[in-house]
Amino acid sequence: MSQIDLHGVFPPITTPFIDGKVAHDKLGSNIEKWSKTGLKGIVVLGSNGEYVYLSEEEKRKVLETAIKAAPKDMFVIAGTGCESTEETIKLTDDCAKLGAHAALVITPHYYGGKMSDSALIKHFTVVADNSSIPILLYNVPKFTYINVTAGVVSVLSQHPNILGIKESSGNVNLLGQYINNVSENFKVMVGTAGVLFGGLSIGCVGGILALANVAPEQCVTIFDLVNESKFEAAKNLQLKMIPVNNAVTAIYGVPGLKAAMDMLGYFGGEPRLPLLPCSEKEKSEIRGILQTAELL
Amino acid sequence: MSQIDLHGVFPPITTPFIDGKVAHDKLGSNIEKWSKTGLKGIVVLGSNGEYVYLSEEEKRKVLETAIKAAPKDMFVIAGTGCESTEETIKLTDDCAKLGAHAALVITPHYYGGKMSDSALIKHFTVVADNSSIPILLYNVPKFTYINVTAGVVSVLSQHPNILGIKESSGNVNLLGQYINNVSENFKVMVGTAGVLFGGLSIGCVGGILALANVAPEQCVTIFDLVNESKFEAAKNLQLKMIPVNNAVTAIYGVPGLKAAMDMLGYFGGEPRLPLLPCSEKEKSEIRGILQTAELL
Amino acid sequence: MSQIDLHGVFPPITTPFIDGKVAHDKLGSNIEKWSKTGLKGIVVLGSNGEYVYLSEEEKRKVLETAIKAAPKDMFVIAGTGCESTEETIKLTDDCAKLGAHAALVITPHYYGGKMSDSALIKHFTVVADNSSIPILLYNVPKFTYINVTAGVVSVLSQHPNILGIKESSGNVNLLGQYINNVSENFKVMVGTAGVLFGGLSIGCVGGILALANVAPEQCVTIFDLVNESKFEAAKNLQLKMIPVNNAVTAIYGVPGLKAAMDMLGYFGGEPRLPLLPCSEKEKSEIRGILQTAELL
Amino acid sequence: MSQIDLHGVFPPITTPFIDGKVAHDKLGSNIEKWSKTGLKGIVVLGSNGEYVYLSEEEKRKVLETAIKAAPKDMFVIAGTGCESTEETIKLTDDCAKLGAHAALVITPHYYGGKMSDSALIKHFTVVADNSSIPILLYNVPKFTYINVTAGVVSVLSQHPNILGIKESSGNVNLLGQYINNVSENFKVMVGTAGVLFGGLSIGCVGGILALANVAPEQCVTIFDLVNESKFEAAKNLQLKMIPVNNAVTAIYGVPGLKAAMDMLGYFGGEPRLPLLPCSEKEKSEIRGILQTAELL
Repeated sequence: MSQIDLHGVFPPITTPFIDGKVAHDKLGSNIEKWSKTGLKGIVVLGSNGEYVYLSEEEKRKVLETAIKAAPKDMFVIAGTGCESTEETIKLTDDCAKLGAHAALVITPHYYGGKMSDSALIKHFTVVADNSSIPILLYNVPKFTYINVTAGVVSVLSQHPNILGIKESSGNVNLLGQYINNVSENFKVMVGTAGVLFGGLSIGCVGGILALANVAPEQCVTIFDLVNESKFEAAKNLQLKMIPVNNAVTAIYGVPGLKAAMDMLGYFGGEPRLPLLPCSEKEKSEIRGILQTAELL
Repeated sequence: MSQIDLHGVFPPITTPFIDGKVAHDKLGSNIEKWSKTGLKGIVVLGSNGEYVYLSEEEKRKVLETAIKAAPKDMFVIAGTGCESTEETIKLTDDCAKLGAHAALVITPHYYGGKMSDSALIKHFTVVADNSSIPILLYNVPKFTYINVTAGVVSVLSQHPNILGIKESSGNVNLLGQYINNVSENFKVMVGTAGVLFGGLSIGCVGGILALANVAPEQCVTIFDLVNESKFEAAKNLQLKMIPVNNAVTAIYGVPGLKAAMDMLGYFGGEPRLPLLPCSEKEKSEIRGILQTAELL
Repeated sequence: MSQIDLHGVFPPITTPFIDGKVAHDKLGSNIEKWSKTGLKGIVVLGSNGEYVYLSEEEKRKVLETAIKAAPKDMFVIAGTGCESTEETIKLTDDCAKLGAHAALVITPHYYGGKMSDSALIKHFTVVADNSSIPILLYNVPKFTYINVTAGVVSVLSQHPNILGIKESSGNVNLLGQYINNVSENFKVMVGTAGVLFGGLSIGCVGGILALANVAPEQCVTIFDLVNESKFEAAKNLQLKMIPVNNAVTAIYGVPGLKAAMDMLGYFGGEPRLPLLPCSEKEKSEIRGILQTAELL
Repeated sequence: MSQIDLHGVFPPITTPFIDGKVAHDKLGSNIEKWSKTGLKGIVVLGSNGEYVYLSEEEKRKVLETAIKAAPKDMFVIAGTGCESTEETIKLTDDCAKLGAHAALVITPHYYGGKMSDSALIKHFTVVADNSSIPILLYNVPKFTYINVTAGVVSVLSQHPNILGIKESSGNVNLLGQYINNVSENFKVMVGTAGVLFGGLSIGCVGGILALANVAPEQCVTIFDLVNESKFEAAKNLQLKMIPVNNAVTAIYGVPGLKAAMDMLGYFGGEPRLPLLPCSEKEKSEIRGILQTAELL
């Protein structure tokens, strides 16, 4: 079933808005630009895509545009996780029909105290059973306050339609625990560029990285250098990217990522409320960080 | 504008499902039963109503049924908070048109690190500006990992269309800070029955209490006893209710609340996936707790 | 064995330093002043006494001075908890010999992940077995990141030499759980003045309150009003004290408590490093808070 | 000043007890065994040395024994951090006089909310000003709930007598932030073996690793493989060691580390109370983990 190749770098792309509406042309032109940077594919409708602010119809439209804009050799993964199992199944099915190569499914998290190992295993199993495209688990405790254990990942890795996991906490030890416990074909992907080298050092096959929205070439280069065992060069580029990655994730979040995109020739624009756009002061700080990293 | 009276007890009611579909008849019969217990009103589409598992259309239908079933002297509050400001405005408007007396709006929380005081103030202000019914803020860090500060509540309490807050963490000191800092007509409501007396002791005007789904009379009695300064009797009933409240909230959650409803003559039923229904062992433990508290 | 009466208010007193040395005369004069305010006793060598910055010998000397300075009708409780069980036993024995009426024993916490229910039960049991004075458990997750469960307290409450618990998180629901599960003579004391009324409303017998260092009369008055069922007056004074309590605990900590003492006729002085003394700006804010509360 | 070489692996060694007393002969024989494994040195009186359960005199005696037992080419670092600045200075001075090559100083943490950047900078600066041996900062949020920021480390790295930091959270991104912001000669050491390769990949010069108590050769081999850019071999050995490291740290803690030592030819023995020794069941699990990793 799984024809998607995860060995490489994927940006979880932002969703551009103009006057509060999805700007499909900007989405298309961003993807065209990204397609020339060595990326393996893109993830739409992820956390950096403000998926929680999109209606179901908007989600489908964004995916349609992305699939149309992406060249044939780029893979398109769609974020399809919802709080309810049933809604997740439905959205995954919609996205499969539209041509997504795989679905990235976040852990449900609202009733966090009840999201036991059993509940998570049940949820992902039922979703995978009902999906015609491969499923990627998505662990992102920063947003969900849930941390999927190696035990859960081990069980789910046996499912023929669960292909891998994106782990975004940046906990390299946890990545290693996953890798130690999963079935042979299951792929572990590092979910934050701050530990791209760290994640690859422990056996991750690729990365889904917010930073790759603004520094795709650098992410791809780190990936390549590690695969060529060019330790010192990989380390130096990794260190150089850490402040940029922190800026567009931990410090300034999605608004900062979009502001950085605007500075680097992509269309970023403003996030939807309640996310506030970056202030001028914040933009100036981001500009400084990009300059120090020689991205500007 | 605000004709709703919050001095009393409101259950955030569960949403009954049969075979995965909303069971509107059961919803109606539950409300009829609650209406004879001294409750001031009900909250639909809250956390205990599994609002995150309901589609927009289901939400409207549930509200319609509730308004139809509730006697004229009961107030109906609708949970209308969504992650995006725009979607919250739209749902609030829908609910107002359907006849809700007020809207309970949860803090947006997915991008928790970006939900600064400014972002929260902006969100609630814009929602209140665009609502034809009064807004109640909803602070529930157990689910959102966001704790609204007294400073934010103070600012928002000045808005003519923001009527009060439901505070569900059970932090009595925080309740006192809210009360110390809000405008005169702003109402602070305790959001968990474990500290009903504690909340009233510091000036809360009423409570929105999961426990009131299964023990409405007892909640109303505590409320009345405190208002009559019957300290000892209030304390004793409060202590008796604490284990029941812990069971139907912290320990067994919504599935446990629904199981307890089934035992006490209401229709509880099963939650939607990924919430798992209580096991037989858990049901037996809940039954024991209800018996000890003389509810069974 | 237990001749100590816990029905009332106890301040966990600060340790005064001059030029880095314990100022025993100031300690004595503070106690003399407190002894005229209706307090039931004092706690020395607690968190507000900077016990972690005192050598064993200093601890004994501070206790000696306190016992000498306290009138016969005031009880003196000594904080004797150390990380190791053996050291706790030894210090408790020393304090018993010096005349302390009871020992307040904090949960060991450095290896927090290993402080299981079994480990805590073992620790407190062995300490109580070897003590000639009654033991009070001390739950203070703000400093220890450990929260003693009602189950542990229930077991320990059966020990003839464990008299009660000071619970400092201010979680009124947890206080209720303790009270529901302990043996008849076991005393639950509220450990933060922000929920003094809240704690008493659920059955606490008294309070050990940092605020009582600077506002002993007010704390005693709240205690008395609640016992007289003067609900409204108790509520109003409680609300008035909340900002002061927050200032001398959560916001400015021990340095702030000491600064407030200096403003109110007690000797506060500076804390030991690494605690930094309050800045002039912070002192000015504290002064404003004291004035608003009519303590100044 | 700094003659100590941190490029290599150091175990933070356990303190052996027999009948509750420090077993100095076992300490000596352990060190003799470790000295033949390629370790660069040892750390005594650290977290794994149960330093919080040792009296001042015991600490000095343990250090004396360690220095006597260690061959001349091994470095001996002493854990000297106490809660108070003054006590830390005194213990550091004692250890310097006894011959320690450097002091590892933990962040004070009891009053965590007051351990601001300013307070930490002041503390470490005063300690370093008054020490005749180089100071290593020690960041271990698992025990302290304090996470030293890159900003603080940057400032302190300018101090001529502050040599480096042991970072034990295993956050590789944070390690990178430290490395990006410190002065040229400042050394960042990874503090948990689960991310030894990850830490080295980002520029750490060595590791202080609990795992090195039981698997010193394997830790040294990972260190060497990385330095030789033998990526694949390093990854495989790293993955093999992760379960062992988790066992002797996160899962079973110091009692588990000591039990594993007993199985591997070192003297482990029992920890001091309140730490409970491993049960037979836990020992059996540990044995299984050691066997899987081919250490047994």
